[in-house]
Amino acid sequence: MTRVGIVGIGHGRFGRRSDATVQELAFEAFRDALADAAIDRQEIDAAVIAAVPEYHKQRSLTGVIMEYLGLNPRSAWLTEDACASGSAAVRTAWMAIRSGLHDVVAVIGAQKMTELSTPEILALMGRVGEVQWESIFGTTFPGYYAMLARRHMHDYGTTKEQLAAVAVKNHYYGARNKNAMFQKEITIQKALSSPPVASPFQVFDCCANADGAAVVIMASEERARKISDKTIWLDGLGSATTSMSLLRRPTLVSLPSAVEAARQAYKMAGVGPDDIKVADVHDCFTIAEILAYEDLGFCEHGQGGKFIEERQSYIGGKHPVNVDGGLKAKGHPIGTTGVSMTTEIVKQLRGQAGERQVEGADVGLTHNVGGNGQYCFVHVFKKE
Amino acid sequence: MTRVGIVGIGHGRFGRRSDATVQELAFEAFRDALADAAIDRQEIDAAVIAAVPEYHKQRSLTGVIMEYLGLNPRSAWLTEDACASGSAAVRTAWMAIRSGLHDVVAVIGAQKMTELSTPEILALMGRVGEVQWESIFGTTFPGYYAMLARRHMHDYGTTKEQLAAVAVKNHYYGARNKNAMFQKEITIQKALSSPPVASPFQVFDCCANADGAAVVIMASEERARKISDKTIWLDGLGSATTSMSLLRRPTLVSLPSAVEAARQAYKMAGVGPDDIKVADVHDCFTIAEILAYEDLGFCEHGQGGKFIEERQSYIGGKHPVNVDGGLKAKGHPIGTTGVSMTTEIVKQLRGQAGERQVEGADVGLTHNVGGNGQYCFVHVFKKE
Repeated sequence: MTRVGIVGIGHGRFGRRSDATVQELAFEAFRDALADAAIDRQEIDAAVIAAVPEYHKQRSLTGVIMEYLGLNPRSAWLTEDACASGSAAVRTAWMAIRSGLHDVVAVIGAQKMTELSTPEILALMGRVGEVQWESIFGTTFPGYYAMLARRHMHDYGTTKEQLAAVAVKNHYYGARNKNAMFQKEITIQKALSSPPVASPFQVFDCCANADGAAVVIMASEERARKISDKTIWLDGLGSATTSMSLLRRPTLVSLPSAVEAARQAYKMAGVGPDDIKVADVHDCFTIAEILAYEDLGFCEHGQGGKFIEERQSYIGGKHPVNVDGGLKAKGHPIGTTGVSMTTEIVKQLRGQAGERQVEGADVGLTHNVGGNGQYCFVHVFKKE
Repeated sequence: MTRVGIVGIGHGRFGRRSDATVQELAFEAFRDALADAAIDRQEIDAAVIAAVPEYHKQRSLTGVIMEYLGLNPRSAWLTEDACASGSAAVRTAWMAIRSGLHDVVAVIGAQKMTELSTPEILALMGRVGEVQWESIFGTTFPGYYAMLARRHMHDYGTTKEQLAAVAVKNHYYGARNKNAMFQKEITIQKALSSPPVASPFQVFDCCANADGAAVVIMASEERARKISDKTIWLDGLGSATTSMSLLRRPTLVSLPSAVEAARQAYKMAGVGPDDIKVADVHDCFTIAEILAYEDLGFCEHGQGGKFIEERQSYIGGKHPVNVDGGLKAKGHPIGTTGVSMTTEIVKQLRGQAGERQVEGADVGLTHNVGGNGQYCFVHVFKKE
């Protein structure tokens, strides 16, 4: 069967985008993706919208985006898997093409997070945990990950300085990404003296809600070879779920969904962790990036704190991770994030990442987590 | 490439289900679908959740359903296309199987519509129309379809009695469906004397919000032949979009999305309208069923009113439509509806519809519309 490749990418500026509606954000990234692929929108034959709908005043988001982008009457569907919606969309686009139903599919990550008031957003976020038995007791979203962090500190001696080191790295690279919400470097001291959020987290342990859009255009091998000479191939897909309830999860120092998704993706792509030259992982909180190092096999379980302390996830280290700034510095428009990650890995494998380029990047990976870990998608990309 | 078939169906009772959470509703239908397919849940290798998330207090619905159904760590994603979410889910499951990524996929339609207060629901529904330029002026959801009805009456002389006749038929069959929300027959007089909603609609022109779940289990041809000797094949898929804004739509007396989706599905399945022995169509309002007759080619444009007046959509007529009661009598749990339609067509093609059975049904169709017509999915099913 056909391989599926990415032939075009587009990425808007993330942040508080009160200057644009969600369809206007989508348009910015879509226009850039079309230009990047050097195709006309008529060549697109279906679109997948990646968004978490409930943060928008507009219902039925797909309709307004399809219309604004001039994509009617093409087929369209929206995927939602909380913060992993973007990778779920990429996965369904892959299936659409591989099945022969579509040939060229646009994956449109488009999310506004600032239309609602802060109390409305906090209420929505808390309910990403299980409502019936857990979040009813008042757990906030940072509270879930804070419990994972505390357990990791307890079991492995991970320190607050190591958590802060993740933030320092990601802000360092965010300062070199023109689309990032935060483009200033920070220090360990600054992170450690920021206000508390949910112990052990302080402000700089947490990513920020953001508005933003990103688009990738995917095509069958036959079409991709006609469209582009810089196609990047999506050759490994992994997707798994685990208990939403932390109470019923077998471990708090790893995301079982991520371990399983990585296993599937590596197997399908015929590679292992050591082959991954660059990765974008889901650092919604600093601990999440440390868990990702371990769950993806970049280091042993329990060694994630040491891994960042030794700067192994910087460019030049063993496994450069989130050298676009990650969720931490780019901001986290939840439906868009997985698509944004995909654009970065494509850019890296093409060798177009400028001062953030990882030399010799030929195999890359995205790791996109939904909710408090209940979903994970891992995708492996290859240059050839 | 492999054909994709439906090997198991399950359907719970629709209505005000304050007795069950959304995951419990999903469980009822899932249990029945497993029993129907006579397989163990271990054989399922992925799940698609069909739901419109924002009607639920629980966020990240997929997580809570996967956990409650014991389906972790399998891959899962949610599709949303407003009231067409169920058919969007069936379509992505087809793609997942046809692409070779999955072999047996459960499509789980699960929706509660009664957790929120009536004002909250009305506000959400109005915003299914375009917020920026249209619904801001106060258009309610029935108001959108009322405009389509008025135009049809103006252009073609369609009467209120003909609209009411759709409701009479669907309640007649609903009275014979144990899962329907409304199981009482009505008369034209009763419909015409019911309270006004949005002129020309009265209460009986409108379907009702409902809670409810339905599940279909789909499999590759190879697996389907091992699992079941009564597999029904999904051989034709159509999906199209049209302007969300009525202002910018080329016509108000037809849904261009439905015409295009039908064209695709007929072509792919190698059939025409005359081959369709039974259909479930999207009768969210009575006019919508009349538009469906015409858009699907069951009669000429403008002749839909006459078609129901002559009872051509009753069993024994030219094209039996919604002989399960339709959205009108079954109730409309919006994410579930497309899955519910699929279960009915499978039942009919298997010859298991009891007193509602259409004799000789070998080819059937579902027609599932999202929003005010901005999405439409048409699926053609075959017995052999």
